[in-house]
Amino acid sequence: MGAEELKALIRTVPDFPAPGIQFRDVTTLLADAGGLAGAVDGLVGLTRDLPVASVAGIEARGFIFGAALALSLGVGFIPMRKAGKLPVETLGEDYKLEYGVARLEVDPSVVVKNAEVLIVDDLLATGGTALAATHLLRRAGARVADAVFVVDLPDIGGSKALEKAGVATRALVAYGGH
Amino acid sequence: MGAEELKALIRTVPDFPAPGIQFRDVTTLLADAGGLAGAVDGLVGLTRDLPVASVAGIEARGFIFGAALALSLGVGFIPMRKAGKLPVETLGEDYKLEYGVARLEVDPSVVVKNAEVLIVDDLLATGGTALAATHLLRRAGARVADAVFVVDLPDIGGSKALEKAGVATRALVAYGGH
Repeated sequence: MGAEELKALIRTVPDFPAPGIQFRDVTTLLADAGGLAGAVDGLVGLTRDLPVASVAGIEARGFIFGAALALSLGVGFIPMRKAGKLPVETLGEDYKLEYGVARLEVDPSVVVKNAEVLIVDDLLATGGTALAATHLLRRAGARVADAVFVVDLPDIGGSKALEKAGVATRALVAYGGH
Repeated sequence: MGAEELKALIRTVPDFPAPGIQFRDVTTLLADAGGLAGAVDGLVGLTRDLPVASVAGIEARGFIFGAALALSLGVGFIPMRKAGKLPVETLGEDYKLEYGVARLEVDPSVVVKNAEVLIVDDLLATGGTALAATHLLRRAGARVADAVFVVDLPDIGGSKALEKAGVATRALVAYGGH
């Protein structure tokens, strides 16, 4: 499925979560059987030649694409969770959102040392969440060199911020502007 | 993958989220490539003969199994979201947790009228969340007759509560006690 077909299934909602923001919403893509399969096929195409030992998906929409991608690549799935959700001792990291602060946590016991973890989320904007995931996974002993997204908003600078941290990014579709 | 093999990959954490609760944690199952594939294969085996037009996964762990199951069944995925996450007008329903109150929301525009929606979550306890999902999907016009879980805690009564609402439940593994 090409980028234009995917874009036709992604809904743009103006002024969410704040005035002036064009929210790129994958709800409509997911609900379409061909769209879901096409997006996951596309993610597999972008990543199957990478040395991936595990896929880490970022709560919550990254769980949707990340689990389907992990299954398709034949590897395990690591959930990068919001604060307080994991029942064990975690590693955690606070990070800035466009509007506020959030915290991401991981169970380090399921992170294999010195193995490559691929980060997955639905959308790359500032890259703050993916950077927090990168730091956490590295603190847990993993190697992180790649992250993949359904949507990239390159003008906001997330791909550059991740590149500075040694993480190459790929995405299925890109939208200019904010 | 049999129930005993799956159970060997599910971690039991005592006294989470409250004293006396044995938390059945799928984090360790997901991180194991064979465990993830075995669980999704098992869910496909429980549901492939059902008339499923869409799979609805409950935020957040239900997204992991639900998206992988939707992809495997060749249908679309409907996210049942926590309050305030969807960027459009939603249908919402408050429900009781074992410890507190929560709200579930759905975008009714992605729910196909009179089509069968299969509900998916990682764990069935009181059934409160799955009942709220059932009500929401029916209010949006869907038919809901089946729900599938990785783990059932039958002594807590969720499967009976769902049966009373006309929803048959299936699960890969069951644990007695609370």
